Amino acid sequence: MKIVVDCMGTDYGPKEIVLGAVDAVKKYGCEVVLVGEEKTLTDLVKQYGYASNEKVTIKNATQVIEMHEHPALAFRQKKDASIVVASKMLKAGEVDALVSSGSTGAAVASALFGVGRIKGVDKPVIALPMPSVKGHVALLDAGGVVDAKPENFVQAAIMGSIYADKILKLHNPKVGLLNIGEEETKGNEQAKAAHALLKNEKNINFIGNIEGRDINHDVADVVVCDGFVGNVVLKFGEGLAKAIFQLIKESIEKAGFLAKIGAYLMKPALAGLKKHVDPNEAGGCLLLGIKAPFVICHGNSKAKAITNAIGTTIEFVKEDVVNIIQEKIAESNKGNEE
Amino acid sequence: MKIVVDCMGTDYGPKEIVLGAVDAVKKYGCEVVLVGEEKTLTDLVKQYGYASNEKVTIKNATQVIEMHEHPALAFRQKKDASIVVASKMLKAGEVDALVSSGSTGAAVASALFGVGRIKGVDKPVIALPMPSVKGHVALLDAGGVVDAKPENFVQAAIMGSIYADKILKLHNPKVGLLNIGEEETKGNEQAKAAHALLKNEKNINFIGNIEGRDINHDVADVVVCDGFVGNVVLKFGEGLAKAIFQLIKESIEKAGFLAKIGAYLMKPALAGLKKHVDPNEAGGCLLLGIKAPFVICHGNSKAKAITNAIGTTIEFVKEDVVNIIQEKIAESNKGNEE
Repeated sequence: MKIVVDCMGTDYGPKEIVLGAVDAVKKYGCEVVLVGEEKTLTDLVKQYGYASNEKVTIKNATQVIEMHEHPALAFRQKKDASIVVASKMLKAGEVDALVSSGSTGAAVASALFGVGRIKGVDKPVIALPMPSVKGHVALLDAGGVVDAKPENFVQAAIMGSIYADKILKLHNPKVGLLNIGEEETKGNEQAKAAHALLKNEKNINFIGNIEGRDINHDVADVVVCDGFVGNVVLKFGEGLAKAIFQLIKESIEKAGFLAKIGAYLMKPALAGLKKHVDPNEAGGCLLLGIKAPFVICHGNSKAKAITNAIGTTIEFVKEDVVNIIQEKIAESNKGNEE
Repeated sequence: MKIVVDCMGTDYGPKEIVLGAVDAVKKYGCEVVLVGEEKTLTDLVKQYGYASNEKVTIKNATQVIEMHEHPALAFRQKKDASIVVASKMLKAGEVDALVSSGSTGAAVASALFGVGRIKGVDKPVIALPMPSVKGHVALLDAGGVVDAKPENFVQAAIMGSIYADKILKLHNPKVGLLNIGEEETKGNEQAKAAHALLKNEKNINFIGNIEGRDINHDVADVVVCDGFVGNVVLKFGEGLAKAIFQLIKESIEKAGFLAKIGAYLMKPALAGLKKHVDPNEAGGCLLLGIKAPFVICHGNSKAKAITNAIGTTIEFVKEDVVNIIQEKIAESNKGNEE
């Protein structure tokens, strides 16, 4: 299996990406194509003890799409941007999948215009594995489609169910619509219209509305919402977890010697929890509804995050998620026409 | 100062409400009027060592609006519901303020139809004090207005700034629009339109867009958003904090003896943090834009939450928040007409 990795445009520079990719080759035995500034990447690969060989190849790209640029515009103008070059390789079938940790907007634009949507999919959505009390739940859309139409919620639910089943291994996953009350009459106009469609969709296991407090408590396996709401939830969750751990740390620092001893003794017990909520462990977000496996990582991904994302990407390919989505979406669209 | 307290329709029954109200009388020296089923309330007041006297009076109300009822409909049909009776007393000027912990929908309907909006206010909003790293920030709207118009964001920002200044004591508060990117071109149609109006509003200190991750980190003192998003954020925050503390507890239980000792030693250091994030400490949400002080508590409020909410209500009255809102909204509306 060959995976193309966009190495440019991330917060920590190509260093972490290259290290993560090289580690993935060692761990999973896959092949990677690193895209970006050739000299930099060659030096980094050497530094990490790999000569450019059949497992690790480098593809030169002289431009980068930065976080602040208009994604669609930049995609058209920067023909030699790393994400554009990587997308073209995916489209041409030279690789099996793509991993990016640059600008999310640029990645989505490159997926849409460079690779293309699966037939029958209106808008691709971003599926996020969110830590829950028992394991992980799928949150989508985490920022792909804002001002989503009710139909987009249904497609997100179908694609999210396949993601939960095949990648998170949550079989016959329960789908909940994120809303502000349990009753189907609750919510904004968008949520009420989405509820009406979800209720009648045969390709999902819809359990009705869920509320914000249910997200991390495994009430649903797939949490469906508008991309605006999902993106706020994703970032608020990161910020709140950080705030809580920061406040715990400050409380201990302010407290006496005994509390510090206590914290020291507790540390090993909390290592597993820290790992469970660490976004670097989660393995990236899947962009669902695109004709080939496309994975988006956080802009601040460390090497471990890239290695894990490549692990998820391998599952994405092996489980044939793209073809299953195509079948299920076709089935759903056919059902709606009848 | 006399405060009417709706004692019915809460998760734990009138017991916690009456206890909280009686404690507030002892703590703040205010007067309370308890509204609800007379016999029950009389017995509870006696049980807590108070005869019905000039400080604690009881007003009979034979009906209750339940959580699942349609708020506006129930307000019209249940003339003797406790929240309806309490609202009428507030409207008539028999009391200075109202505290409710029943159905939020019923409270908002009673405020709107029973008390009325401040002249020039389009929709009342719910202001929530959200724990942050340094103290508290104001989040609004926490569920009052869904499908908010851009003008509602501006009024929420003005009212929220007064709330932050007078109640949270955050002077010249920074107002941030909750969005999915920092640039003003980011977001859904609603957020983009709101941004354009907020930028030109003279009665607030607008700092631009903020993201979900900024909410608890004091980037803004007033976080403005649609009521749907605010309600999701409020409940997700509660659920996530609960999940984190539950996972910490489970990790310690699973771990060995040393970790348990560690947790025991750390407990006193974390007491302050626990208090800081406890919704019972926060003192309720203010319903802003109503002609008289109106405070809404969580349906699962314990006695302490009610006592604290009455404390906030006293500030609400003393700081003359209602009149300041009326002046500032008139000023803003006049500015828009010119």
